[in-house]
Amino acid sequence: VPFDWEQKFASRVDRMTGSAIRDLLRLAERPDVISFAGGLPAVDVLPAEEVERASQRILRNLGSWALQYGATEGYLPLREWIAGTMSQEGIPITVDNVLITTGSQQALDLLGKIFVGPGDWIAVESPTYPAALQAWSAYEGEFLPIPSDERGMILDQLEEQLAAGPKFLYCLPNFQNPRGVTLVAERRENLVAVATRAGVPIVEDDPYRDLRFEGDHLPRLLAIDAQRRGVGENSYRGGVIYVSSFSKILSPGIRVGWLIAAPEVIRRLVLAKQSTDLHTSTFNQMLAYDLARTGYLVRHIPTIVHAYRERRDVMLAALREHFPPNVRWTHPQGGMFIWVTLPEDYDAQVLLGEAIARKVAFVPGASFHVDGRGANTLRLNFTNATPERIREGIARLGCVLREQLRPRRTSRVA
Amino acid sequence: VPFDWEQKFASRVDRMTGSAIRDLLRLAERPDVISFAGGLPAVDVLPAEEVERASQRILRNLGSWALQYGATEGYLPLREWIAGTMSQEGIPITVDNVLITTGSQQALDLLGKIFVGPGDWIAVESPTYPAALQAWSAYEGEFLPIPSDERGMILDQLEEQLAAGPKFLYCLPNFQNPRGVTLVAERRENLVAVATRAGVPIVEDDPYRDLRFEGDHLPRLLAIDAQRRGVGENSYRGGVIYVSSFSKILSPGIRVGWLIAAPEVIRRLVLAKQSTDLHTSTFNQMLAYDLARTGYLVRHIPTIVHAYRERRDVMLAALREHFPPNVRWTHPQGGMFIWVTLPEDYDAQVLLGEAIARKVAFVPGASFHVDGRGANTLRLNFTNATPERIREGIARLGCVLREQLRPRRTSRVA
Repeated sequence: VPFDWEQKFASRVDRMTGSAIRDLLRLAERPDVISFAGGLPAVDVLPAEEVERASQRILRNLGSWALQYGATEGYLPLREWIAGTMSQEGIPITVDNVLITTGSQQALDLLGKIFVGPGDWIAVESPTYPAALQAWSAYEGEFLPIPSDERGMILDQLEEQLAAGPKFLYCLPNFQNPRGVTLVAERRENLVAVATRAGVPIVEDDPYRDLRFEGDHLPRLLAIDAQRRGVGENSYRGGVIYVSSFSKILSPGIRVGWLIAAPEVIRRLVLAKQSTDLHTSTFNQMLAYDLARTGYLVRHIPTIVHAYRERRDVMLAALREHFPPNVRWTHPQGGMFIWVTLPEDYDAQVLLGEAIARKVAFVPGASFHVDGRGANTLRLNFTNATPERIREGIARLGCVLREQLRPRRTSRVA
Repeated sequence: VPFDWEQKFASRVDRMTGSAIRDLLRLAERPDVISFAGGLPAVDVLPAEEVERASQRILRNLGSWALQYGATEGYLPLREWIAGTMSQEGIPITVDNVLITTGSQQALDLLGKIFVGPGDWIAVESPTYPAALQAWSAYEGEFLPIPSDERGMILDQLEEQLAAGPKFLYCLPNFQNPRGVTLVAERRENLVAVATRAGVPIVEDDPYRDLRFEGDHLPRLLAIDAQRRGVGENSYRGGVIYVSSFSKILSPGIRVGWLIAAPEVIRRLVLAKQSTDLHTSTFNQMLAYDLARTGYLVRHIPTIVHAYRERRDVMLAALREHFPPNVRWTHPQGGMFIWVTLPEDYDAQVLLGEAIARKVAFVPGASFHVDGRGANTLRLNFTNATPERIREGIARLGCVLREQLRPRRTSRVA
């Protein structure tokens, strides 16, 4: 007799729905399918040999301490290194501002845990990263979509929108997931000014910053906020929470990310993290620190940038060659994604079924929206497939688009 | 001008209080203090050399895949190995019953996330593991204490107690943290029978099972439940959720644990884990699998057991030699902890202050209780300090006890 579990779950479980396209995308994992669906790095830029050498150095020099429990705040030398790096922009970051997280996804979850209760509003760029929405839905938050264009979040109505009193505003300023667009410099200043006036914190999620293929780095919202507030000797105490990770510049499989915030926020996050996973893997933190400290990371990032720039260029060229003229797409200056807009009334989810039959996959854009929009949009990842497979995959998708594009709609999926 | 964060936090943050003894215990981290406070393994049983060899094997054979994103459910070969090992007791465990977690602490957090809402009851053995209480307090659960004695949880009133309809009952059957006692066989049968009748799931937290110094293994509650329900060909679908980890038998610093439950519970936990940390470190799961698969773990466990048995014996002998006759303590058959009971009206927290002045530390017992009891109790860890330091530390503590023990009470700390 099986146990009857269904009546036992907490009400928040109703919010934890898997995506309806998940089963479809599972088909995309077959090796004969060319997938532009995931957000995976190229496996060839993941430095197995260098990690092997670092593992050896750590286990010989630090021995069993690499395998022992560690502090919830994180491995102190890594926190110091991050504080040092982040201070280079003139932001007064000390170790008291730094929390190491189990990937940046954990940072998003912990922010939900300390800030979001049933019915709380969170302002999000729309479209945005779905796993952030999932993380905060689990705490029964509600989303306030802020539209965006080719220059990032549109701020014209922001002051009125923030009057709803959201717990925070969530923003990916560089090569945003899913659209690949970057928030331009003047909007960055403006965004910080408006949010400060409204007393709304900003969560700046910045995993792709170092994956810039062209153009100059733009100031972090964190740096703009620190400057506006005036810099003293002490730890940063402003209204921006900055989230980043080693996933895109070193390895996602080691699950090491970090978060910068005012010390009073860090203290709450430490309490929340303690009961969540005690601490992030000691060994993996030491790996990240070793490869940062020895300068490997600084040498490795250009290799990744070079590989990804080529793949972006190959995909953009293939899109121009194979896609019908009534389809538009973004031109990202970095990151991992291109965003495609089909003519109005065309449905990317119907298209996905046809595409998978032709052994090519992507993510329909509706999944990135909180307001039912985006049925005619889709996201393409250009970092995971090789240039050859990108050419072939976009050619296949171009065929599907030309043959199969026809106006029909299905119901929206979350 | 610092940002004003205090008004921004969610109500559940009020429940995430650090322990009042935390600052005191921070002093115990100084190398001149002999600490029996933590729950840390001996650093000398953490196998740095073997992990180095495993790292090399993995990074040479599997290369960059060890550094890539992985499935939320966990690394399939590791899940298969766990399913195989857990099935040896005749429980029908398949991969659909297995979730890999970022240490067993994450299992406790995810259980809170899918089961516990504001005002929900959770029945817990009292005293119990405080980080489980922290994990579920964060979801605003309330605790129903079930008393325990030298033979584990006392079941006489359990039927009436479970009438309150708790979401689940939490139990550490082997060498329980903090008391070191083991739930005897007849009570195991009885516990499963009563919980089944009441329709209350059991969370069986079993990190210490393999650290048995003497006597035979007792059946898991999971096995008893599976047998009662009748075993078919399919995956286990009963009312026990089993939690364990590689922390105590391999390394806590790699943060790899696992959970066994009915597939419909695993499905909910996977959705919850997805937004919590995406997945557990691929590399670390491969490390655990490599060391399990190659048979190293089976050879290594007796080394740990041998070292810990000696330390337990040294501590028990030192307790007999140095502690006053009106103090009692448990005789654990395994695990990491001895539980000390002082005469009524003596306060272990006052004693801790005196002990730290004499450079020896422990955890006062009130922290493990949910009902304000236990002021005259304390927990001693015997695995982390060397035998020499155990002798010296218990001698110091014996001096403090004889000199400083005097009836006074301070207010209870959580």
